Amino acid sequence: MHCMYMRDCDGMPDPAQRDLLMRQEASRQTGGQIVLTAAEQKLDAYLHRLKEQEMSAAQFPPAIHFFKAKHLIQRSSIFKLLQKMPKGAALHVHSSALVSVDWLVKNVTYRPHCYVCFTWDSSVRFLFSARPPPPRWDCFSWQLLQTLRGKLGDPTGFDNSLMQHLTLFTQDPDGEYPNQDVVWEKFEKAFIAAAGLITHAPVLRDYFYKGLEELHQDNIMYLELRSGLSRTYELDGTIHDKVWTLKTLQEVTTKFTADHPDFLGARVIFVHEKSLKVKAAVQEAIQLQKDFPDVVAGFDMVGREDSGRTLWYFREALSLPAELGATLPYFFHAGETDDEGTDIDQNILDALLFNTSRIGHGYALARHPLSKELAKKKNVAVELCPISNQVLKLVSDLRNHPATVLMSEGHPMVISSDDPSLFGTSGLSYDFYQAFVGIGGFKANLGTLKELAANSIRYSSLPAHLKEKGHVAWETKWDAFVADNCC
Amino acid sequence: MHCMYMRDCDGMPDPAQRDLLMRQEASRQTGGQIVLTAAEQKLDAYLHRLKEQEMSAAQFPPAIHFFKAKHLIQRSSIFKLLQKMPKGAALHVHSSALVSVDWLVKNVTYRPHCYVCFTWDSSVRFLFSARPPPPRWDCFSWQLLQTLRGKLGDPTGFDNSLMQHLTLFTQDPDGEYPNQDVVWEKFEKAFIAAAGLITHAPVLRDYFYKGLEELHQDNIMYLELRSGLSRTYELDGTIHDKVWTLKTLQEVTTKFTADHPDFLGARVIFVHEKSLKVKAAVQEAIQLQKDFPDVVAGFDMVGREDSGRTLWYFREALSLPAELGATLPYFFHAGETDDEGTDIDQNILDALLFNTSRIGHGYALARHPLSKELAKKKNVAVELCPISNQVLKLVSDLRNHPATVLMSEGHPMVISSDDPSLFGTSGLSYDFYQAFVGIGGFKANLGTLKELAANSIRYSSLPAHLKEKGHVAWETKWDAFVADNCC
Ligand SMILES: [Zn+2]
Ligand SMILES: [Zn+2]
Repeated sequence: MHCMYMRDCDGMPDPAQRDLLMRQEASRQTGGQIVLTAAEQKLDAYLHRLKEQEMSAAQFPPAIHFFKAKHLIQRSSIFKLLQKMPKGAALHVHSSALVSVDWLVKNVTYRPHCYVCFTWDSSVRFLFSARPPPPRWDCFSWQLLQTLRGKLGDPTGFDNSLMQHLTLFTQDPDGEYPNQDVVWEKFEKAFIAAAGLITHAPVLRDYFYKGLEELHQDNIMYLELRSGLSRTYELDGTIHDKVWTLKTLQEVTTKFTADHPDFLGARVIFVHEKSLKVKAAVQEAIQLQKDFPDVVAGFDMVGREDSGRTLWYFREALSLPAELGATLPYFFHAGETDDEGTDIDQNILDALLFNTSRIGHGYALARHPLSKELAKKKNVAVELCPISNQVLKLVSDLRNHPATVLMSEGHPMVISSDDPSLFGTSGLSYDFYQAFVGIGGFKANLGTLKELAANSIRYSSLPAHLKEKGHVAWETKWDAFVADNCC
Repeated sequence: MHCMYMRDCDGMPDPAQRDLLMRQEASRQTGGQIVLTAAEQKLDAYLHRLKEQEMSAAQFPPAIHFFKAKHLIQRSSIFKLLQKMPKGAALHVHSSALVSVDWLVKNVTYRPHCYVCFTWDSSVRFLFSARPPPPRWDCFSWQLLQTLRGKLGDPTGFDNSLMQHLTLFTQDPDGEYPNQDVVWEKFEKAFIAAAGLITHAPVLRDYFYKGLEELHQDNIMYLELRSGLSRTYELDGTIHDKVWTLKTLQEVTTKFTADHPDFLGARVIFVHEKSLKVKAAVQEAIQLQKDFPDVVAGFDMVGREDSGRTLWYFREALSLPAELGATLPYFFHAGETDDEGTDIDQNILDALLFNTSRIGHGYALARHPLSKELAKKKNVAVELCPISNQVLKLVSDLRNHPATVLMSEGHPMVISSDDPSLFGTSGLSYDFYQAFVGIGGFKANLGTLKELAANSIRYSSLPAHLKEKGHVAWETKWDAFVADNCC
């Protein structure tokens, strides 16, 4: 046994040994095993210098609320590099928050036949309709947007106010969202407001295409979209079912990949509210997956975890596939909570016991040593969405995000954006920035970024041959990115 | 291999197996191995019910700033139980912040010959002097407090303003301390302000006695005090050296334990500023420890870690004891930082390589997997001071404190208060509350509390026979506490 392990050891610690220990520890972090090429080493050294500057600046973006940090991040040289970096896949994005609200308001609400209504709880509803819609329980009076805009003196101000209804983004996040309850209430309102626009059948097509475009522009090549496959409506009131939505997503993806041959495609994780009729939803998911094996990746449940039912509560429904001899991959949200030791806090373990393929968020995983080991053994990655966790008030300073622990241990992990339009992001570069600079700190290097990007293909739901194809395509892009920026 | 480890496993997870896993995980946490007696189980169940109430209340104290949560905690039934609980030892308390400012102002500043001076940077200085002190560089005009108070209409208001100079406590922590720099500046100002009072030789005696009394009242039986052993002064200007201070602490401790036979005593960890002349300080520490082996426990360095030198920078000085064939136990502050991968962030590893006996704070330890393993192997405890970490702005919501990870893994740990007078606490009950309710969450139970209290004796610097004696004495108190409160 070497002296350094003994309490009564003599003399100065051996600097070479100290160095070795530091390198051993660094090698455990995400990407710590990756051997960088000469070109990558140059880029890494450059990134390190940039990080030094960023960490010594007066304001450190990951330490402050993203809504206040966004303009700082946009000016960051690291961020600009991350935008150019091929980031692989976005594996945790909800369909209702896929496209920036700017486009929703400036494009969609300017289309003909778009009606708007302001509800008694100062929320907003949209509806496309051939003729004025009748009053509803929550909406007494609908106005044609075109007419309304014509009457208003300040269309820009009006459009900005519409955007405010569709996003959480604000200049004063601490004032507007004093606690989790308030921010979740706004979160749900914004989803409802967007629904009237997005579920209009012709809009959905464009919306989804635009969503893929935003990802592609941020150098992302593949998407797994969590979607409830809501029914859509036509101008004449016709309603389309889930299968229509699924087929539409498939068609749009086919068109998009034809237009952009370097884009791999998109798949859907069918999600259901963590409330009623979960059994029926699981059965539906089994059927959809059987009918659309190329598009439907699996099943997940959504809704605020802290105030909802546990996964274990739905154990019978979730056991259905096995009972029926069917396979239905799960991609559960779990551990999106600050509370420890509550019933909800067991969701991560249960997600693993139900053989989840990945864990959405897994914010609580670091404080569950046994579940953490189990996840590592089963090679189940967490989908880390740092900006989501901060905006939804799980943590204020991202240097305290528990993923610091996971990253230092090289726990399987991918980076995602959760609800980009609600958080005022687009693509994955903002979340990569927070993960790389805030959560990874000085330790995270180009190897970390490379592993995170490669992980997004590795832990995707793609079949093995497409994974391989995707990895090769991504690697080609990666090498070009390094060559373009290293020297 | 059991089915649950396999991806393609069939059927519902076995509830018994799930239960077993949950219990296995719980058994890893701090105190998870402790088998509770029947009486302890009753008390534990009661505590669990109280926690349920507290966690479902509108405001959860560990989630908000301690200065705003203090009155909530004071009303908490858990807190009241913790006050009665025999907590063992306080192992990380700084001598300049040992006694509440209330006593300093209401007692010490009312003594005769106490002069006050207000500096140009709106700070305050005190000095006991037989005649008016001459102007100093930082203090142009000294006023006798007795005279000044006679002139003022509102002595209570005046005394409160004096207290404000001696503590960080305020109703508006977010407004007054927008960032770490500001709070550390105030921190250092408050220390300087207190120094003029505490280093007056006759005051020091009473101050230290009062400090032991406050701990004893909070059911603490032993203290390890971090002290620079500042020189003290008499009314006539005589200056006493470090040895005088050390002897005084020894005498006061002897008197206190004579007055309170259930108190075990106090020892000193000699501390030095992390700046100049560290070599000389280490030599002095070796000498003091040789001359006062019963009182001097070892050596530590202080000062804000983020802006100071690294331990490794002082490696020659810290290697002196080994070089000289002397023993000098170390009790280093290390890892009191949010920043990751910086030079400072290596302090924990270096503290371990220099065979530190404990780690002060170790806030960054959870994100250093190799250092964490090394610390566990060497059985080096972290001194967790949750309120200090929150007030000094390392973390805002204590549920995000990285010690959640350490506690879930049963990492060696003791609870302490760091600078109670600056944070507006007294004893350890407030920090125990935060550790038990905030960091431990629902999972932490009576076993956790029992282990944390027992740890404080186990990881103290006491020689083996006194540890044994201390443990027996503590256990007797513990059993009485359980019997008194369980049923
Ligand atoms: Zn999500
Ligand atoms: Zn300290």
